[in-house]
Amino acid sequence: MHVMIIGAAGMIGKKLARQICGDHSIGAKIVSRLTLVDVVAPQADTSSKIEQMCVTADLSTYGAAKRLIAGRPDVIFHLAAIVSSDAEADFEKGYLINLDGTRYLFEAIRHQSDIEPYCPKVIFTSSLAVFGVPLPDEIPDDFVLAPLSCYGTQKAIGELLLADYSRRRFLDGIALRLPTICVRPGKPNKAASGFYSSIIREPLIGEEAVLPVPRELRHWFASPRSAVGALLHAAEIDLAPLGARRSLNLPGVSASVGEQIEALRRVAGNKATTLIKEVPDAAILRIVSSWPKAFSAERAKSLGFKAEASMDEIIHAHIEDELGGALG
Amino acid sequence: MHVMIIGAAGMIGKKLARQICGDHSIGAKIVSRLTLVDVVAPQADTSSKIEQMCVTADLSTYGAAKRLIAGRPDVIFHLAAIVSSDAEADFEKGYLINLDGTRYLFEAIRHQSDIEPYCPKVIFTSSLAVFGVPLPDEIPDDFVLAPLSCYGTQKAIGELLLADYSRRRFLDGIALRLPTICVRPGKPNKAASGFYSSIIREPLIGEEAVLPVPRELRHWFASPRSAVGALLHAAEIDLAPLGARRSLNLPGVSASVGEQIEALRRVAGNKATTLIKEVPDAAILRIVSSWPKAFSAERAKSLGFKAEASMDEIIHAHIEDELGGALG
Repeated sequence: MHVMIIGAAGMIGKKLARQICGDHSIGAKIVSRLTLVDVVAPQADTSSKIEQMCVTADLSTYGAAKRLIAGRPDVIFHLAAIVSSDAEADFEKGYLINLDGTRYLFEAIRHQSDIEPYCPKVIFTSSLAVFGVPLPDEIPDDFVLAPLSCYGTQKAIGELLLADYSRRRFLDGIALRLPTICVRPGKPNKAASGFYSSIIREPLIGEEAVLPVPRELRHWFASPRSAVGALLHAAEIDLAPLGARRSLNLPGVSASVGEQIEALRRVAGNKATTLIKEVPDAAILRIVSSWPKAFSAERAKSLGFKAEASMDEIIHAHIEDELGGALG
Repeated sequence: MHVMIIGAAGMIGKKLARQICGDHSIGAKIVSRLTLVDVVAPQADTSSKIEQMCVTADLSTYGAAKRLIAGRPDVIFHLAAIVSSDAEADFEKGYLINLDGTRYLFEAIRHQSDIEPYCPKVIFTSSLAVFGVPLPDEIPDDFVLAPLSCYGTQKAIGELLLADYSRRRFLDGIALRLPTICVRPGKPNKAASGFYSSIIREPLIGEEAVLPVPRELRHWFASPRSAVGALLHAAEIDLAPLGARRSLNLPGVSASVGEQIEALRRVAGNKATTLIKEVPDAAILRIVSSWPKAFSAERAKSLGFKAEASMDEIIHAHIEDELGGALG
């Protein structure tokens, strides 16, 4: 099986590639070939037996998508996007990369059938940003698409295109609305959501973290490990039971900031939690307080998608995957 | 005020232009200039005092939209689209006209602000086709977008773009999901929905009509007069109360085919209803049985949008507007 990851140099893309290289398969199917694509050069896993090809390409030019799809991958993970704040700051670039790039990809796939029949599986990462206030405490499956950002609009349009191309059997698509990733590895960043990971990640290594919002604030999380697991599960299962509705809210953990901190205390002790400094930031609060608190995710669960059962598990996953399995 | 109608040669476009030409205003605002645009030459109303310009243009080329918007219309009615069956039959043409054409228009509007500030009101006709089964008997406002056709997908994407461009204040937009128009004037056509008008229109002039579906089938209707009224109302009101959700399900009449026929009997007598011949057609039934039965349309009603109160009123509107006010 030939697998392509577009957006392979990103945090999730790298972890996904590493998992596939380690497993040599997705479910029962052997992966013989892996094509890693990104706008910055992706890195091959030299320890893996899988034949890997690294391609530096920008999907937002039509020719690029066509060249990529000429290799007729059986499974395509489309993770490439510019992030929410960038898409809002640069209107044209956001539409070019997140909308046109996705459409060029789907069009290149459709045109491969001009040569001989072709209908690859396409796993598209969508986002909670397709939803907008007012929101219920628990968002049901099939809730109204009402994005309040360019990024959310572009992802919602990508979902609609994916569903229509799937209905017409040009591809066999699924859109996964990933929970907010926690604990995101790496350094603190300026994303409005950054503190959700920072208040766990930094104290675990003895560093201070800033909490800009009240402890009552609730949000929806999954570990990087769960996100990769969901992508692989989507590649493995039969998508026919989805019918025409190809977008799924994934399972996750609903936790308040206070519950995050209590989980940190259980895992790493009081000393860790004292490293969290409360520095209220109205601008960050305004952004994140409009975000979803929880999802029912019933359809995804019935299709076998899983996430952690608690914030404690999410923290343990981070310790295992990023800190060598134990606290220093 | 400069008003532009894109799709001015269509059935609703013509009626809208005629109404504006007769009223010389929309609400309290005088219309001094009317630009009529379509891919086939629109016709000016020579009896009107309004300065009219007829433009033959295809919105699906970027340059066309730019030239149209150079005239900086204050209100733009965007009615242009290729219909559902054509969009399904010719995948590329459907996306080119219904998606790219709409996007080129919005982009041309956005770029007018490069010259000097510009934020026209844009009234976009959307469709019930943005919804797909399973559907409740009465569809609430803010129901999930789940189209089951290329046309519905293209309209849903147009709605999302309109909302995002409105949020960013590039334009002040509203999308109206029109009920199925009944009674559509003119000759019988091959649209799956054609019989809904045909079973009223033909018997009223003493001609036979074919009914291809059972009398229990229920659907959602408004007269051409109501549709034009809704477009003008949208142009007249302040759109700020819509907030970020710029798409409205319009009020209409929910009627079964049997109720349509009983209304025809009340208006035109038994003789008219005997002209309806039942010729079951499984293909037509399969298409129309997945269509919405009714909408709550609460947001639209609260904003002052109106439709007929009954099928009887819809039939009377047809007699007044198309048959000179009385049966022959």
